[in-house]
Amino acid sequence: MPEPLSPTHDRTVFFVSDGTGITAETLGHSVLTQFEHLRYRPQRLPFVDSADKAREASARINEAGVRDGKRPIVFSTLVDPTVSAAMRAGAEAFFIEMFEAFVEPLERELGLQSTHTIGRSHAIRVNSEDYKNRIEAINFTLAHDDGQSAKGLAGADVILVGVSRSGKTPTSLYLAMQYGVKAANYPLIPEDFERGQLPTALPHHKDKIFGLSISPERLAEVRHERRPNSRYAALENCRSEIEAAERMMRREGIRWLSSTTKSIEEIAATIMQEVRLERRSY
Amino acid sequence: MPEPLSPTHDRTVFFVSDGTGITAETLGHSVLTQFEHLRYRPQRLPFVDSADKAREASARINEAGVRDGKRPIVFSTLVDPTVSAAMRAGAEAFFIEMFEAFVEPLERELGLQSTHTIGRSHAIRVNSEDYKNRIEAINFTLAHDDGQSAKGLAGADVILVGVSRSGKTPTSLYLAMQYGVKAANYPLIPEDFERGQLPTALPHHKDKIFGLSISPERLAEVRHERRPNSRYAALENCRSEIEAAERMMRREGIRWLSSTTKSIEEIAATIMQEVRLERRSY
Repeated sequence: MPEPLSPTHDRTVFFVSDGTGITAETLGHSVLTQFEHLRYRPQRLPFVDSADKAREASARINEAGVRDGKRPIVFSTLVDPTVSAAMRAGAEAFFIEMFEAFVEPLERELGLQSTHTIGRSHAIRVNSEDYKNRIEAINFTLAHDDGQSAKGLAGADVILVGVSRSGKTPTSLYLAMQYGVKAANYPLIPEDFERGQLPTALPHHKDKIFGLSISPERLAEVRHERRPNSRYAALENCRSEIEAAERMMRREGIRWLSSTTKSIEEIAATIMQEVRLERRSY
Repeated sequence: MPEPLSPTHDRTVFFVSDGTGITAETLGHSVLTQFEHLRYRPQRLPFVDSADKAREASARINEAGVRDGKRPIVFSTLVDPTVSAAMRAGAEAFFIEMFEAFVEPLERELGLQSTHTIGRSHAIRVNSEDYKNRIEAINFTLAHDDGQSAKGLAGADVILVGVSRSGKTPTSLYLAMQYGVKAANYPLIPEDFERGQLPTALPHHKDKIFGLSISPERLAEVRHERRPNSRYAALENCRSEIEAAERMMRREGIRWLSSTTKSIEEIAATIMQEVRLERRSY
């Protein structure tokens, strides 16, 4: 039983889909971030793939509307017109139908009929090349996290380097998951700075190395969460590691960016562009 | 220099954004999967956040159109009307402007002005609670992959169980990355079946256990890729492990699904719904 709408929630927003709801959520959330002062309670309704489930969905939409005293916003990617009609017939809400808005104009432009097939975008394509690439990329990335293995680096699409906690692991995983890219990552550690050389496995692969840096203040904060009051987390130590890492990357001609104010998505999208990586999976 | 459009590519499709381009790609790809017979060459143009970059974008769009002999399709999430106008002024293409289509009607519905702010959806919110939840979830999931650690299972939102290669690791990582959910995973191994009991760490956490199963044929295929011609991958062995795992899950009252024909997104969305997990991060 959801709690009543608090004064900070202006609306309940439903993301309705015949599949996972990821497309509806991604677009809906992007659009809603354009309304700075709107607070909303998100509700996912995935796998609405029959008229019966559509009627259940509209009942839930109506309950929320009655409870809130305001009609809900519904972002829908329902594809089947019968299912979509069954939802709309019963519900008092503001509907944003993503497919309706775009599929019909595209039919005219392409001179093709759309299939109106449910849940296609994340659907049964588990045997596809595409999907295998992605699982392979995830496995590769896990096996090559944090310099675990120098073996197989030749198979990497990109190798991220940077000091501990500069964002290498989440970025590598995101690259694998979202883009199907095999992303290894290698830490730059104080011993490397003393030797004044890249870790020995790396110089052969310079064309696919990409560096992550971070502000010393932010790094100290992140490291403090992991090991409070350690030398590892001390601002002075963070500053000297970062300086040494940036000096090394500059000297070796390694491209890099600062992750300080960037989300994983932004770091990953920038790397895709800079290293000119091709997406291997949808 | 992209190769010329092959006969299997009917169009070049651009995903243009002032941010990462992920929203444009996600929606665009979803919409295009509705056209079964369309083959297209996707081109990402992220970080188009000035009129100058918009003009560069339209030059690239026009090059593709001339090369293909067909005008490109452009999915755009450009927010700034000046930038958007600069792109459209120069380019001969079929434009699908996602924000224009939805933001204005929403302004009227909400009685709020949109901010027309660039790249908000994946933008600088690195210090937000939301974002911290997500990084924490990724770290938790990595530390609790494949039964690595029984410590801290109390902090898990969900614990996936299943035989080796049933899809636990990619699903756990996806749950962490996409939904900010702390997902541990634990293998069910022949020793557990012999003892006839769940791994000892698990019975305390039964309310948050979710099982993954898979068809023996598919499992044998996946395991053969990893260890060809091993006993581990033999169909007979896969069949007996799966039967034992399903028997155990049934006896213990553990909810489970078969991952055989499902994508990671579908498995994850189903788990979110079944375990009634709340999204912790956008």
